[in-house]
Amino acid sequence: MSKLNTLNDLFLNELRDVYDAEQQILDALPDLIDEVTAPRLKAALQEHLGQTQTHVHRLEQAFEALGEQAKAKKCQAMRGLVKEGAELASENGDPAVLDAAIIAAAQKVEHYEIATYGALATWAELLQENEVAELLKATIGEEKQADDTLKEIAKADINLRAAA
Amino acid sequence: MSKLNTLNDLFLNELRDVYDAEQQILDALPDLIDEVTAPRLKAALQEHLGQTQTHVHRLEQAFEALGEQAKAKKCQAMRGLVKEGAELASENGDPAVLDAAIIAAAQKVEHYEIATYGALATWAELLQENEVAELLKATIGEEKQADDTLKEIAKADINLRAAA
Repeated sequence: MSKLNTLNDLFLNELRDVYDAEQQILDALPDLIDEVTAPRLKAALQEHLGQTQTHVHRLEQAFEALGEQAKAKKCQAMRGLVKEGAELASENGDPAVLDAAIIAAAQKVEHYEIATYGALATWAELLQENEVAELLKATIGEEKQADDTLKEIAKADINLRAAA
Repeated sequence: MSKLNTLNDLFLNELRDVYDAEQQILDALPDLIDEVTAPRLKAALQEHLGQTQTHVHRLEQAFEALGEQAKAKKCQAMRGLVKEGAELASENGDPAVLDAAIIAAAQKVEHYEIATYGALATWAELLQENEVAELLKATIGEEKQADDTLKEIAKADINLRAAA
């Protein structure tokens, strides 16, 4: 990692981190989708896979707007989050309980992204990179919505079946 | 990890995970506190260190209420989050930029915990473990407050100095 002499250094560092994080999610989601059984959950994760592709594309647009190469920097935190999700997906057990576990793991990923994009959007505004700030805020909206959808599915369906 | 046959298995698994996560935070926070320069940020992280001790204690009360031994299970996600924070804390650069970086890392940790405790509290209610649910909800409130405080400090002070 280069030195953090300016907010711009930090901003680019974090942008590269989340660019890697989104790609890790793209790699990991299909296995989780295979593993879940509840149709609504499968559909929600499938939709989120499509959104994640959009998020990667928006990050590439952001790098371009900044005149920087789209470069990823290994995101250790997402590595841990994905590892936990993969461990859960490989567990044996009751299908509804596994679905509940996978929802919780996915919500942790959403929260990681909400925190990261929140900092990035604030910094983009301070750096007066308004086009980039708009791209980041569009993604935040979708991450929050994905979190709400997962919460709603858990409450309405999965948790009740897991507790049955 | 034991099989996830019941919601109770999943609940205990996640409780052990967050018990480890809180202890990792207890270990990691003092170094971050040493590293930051803004007095308000130092004070806020110091206060959160005290709260984290309370969170560990509440988890021990929860295990006791459930008639289970307080046992930790390595939390991979927190390992990654802490590793990222430690990397930032060891960076060279402008002190205000490093403070901004550490705030963002701390907010990611808060969001991880908010997501985890949120799932745990919902499951505790479904399992009719009301005493445990109350303990978990008390911690969620403090994690959200800590996140709000960090956000406020970043907006009012750190980010502006980092951008200067």
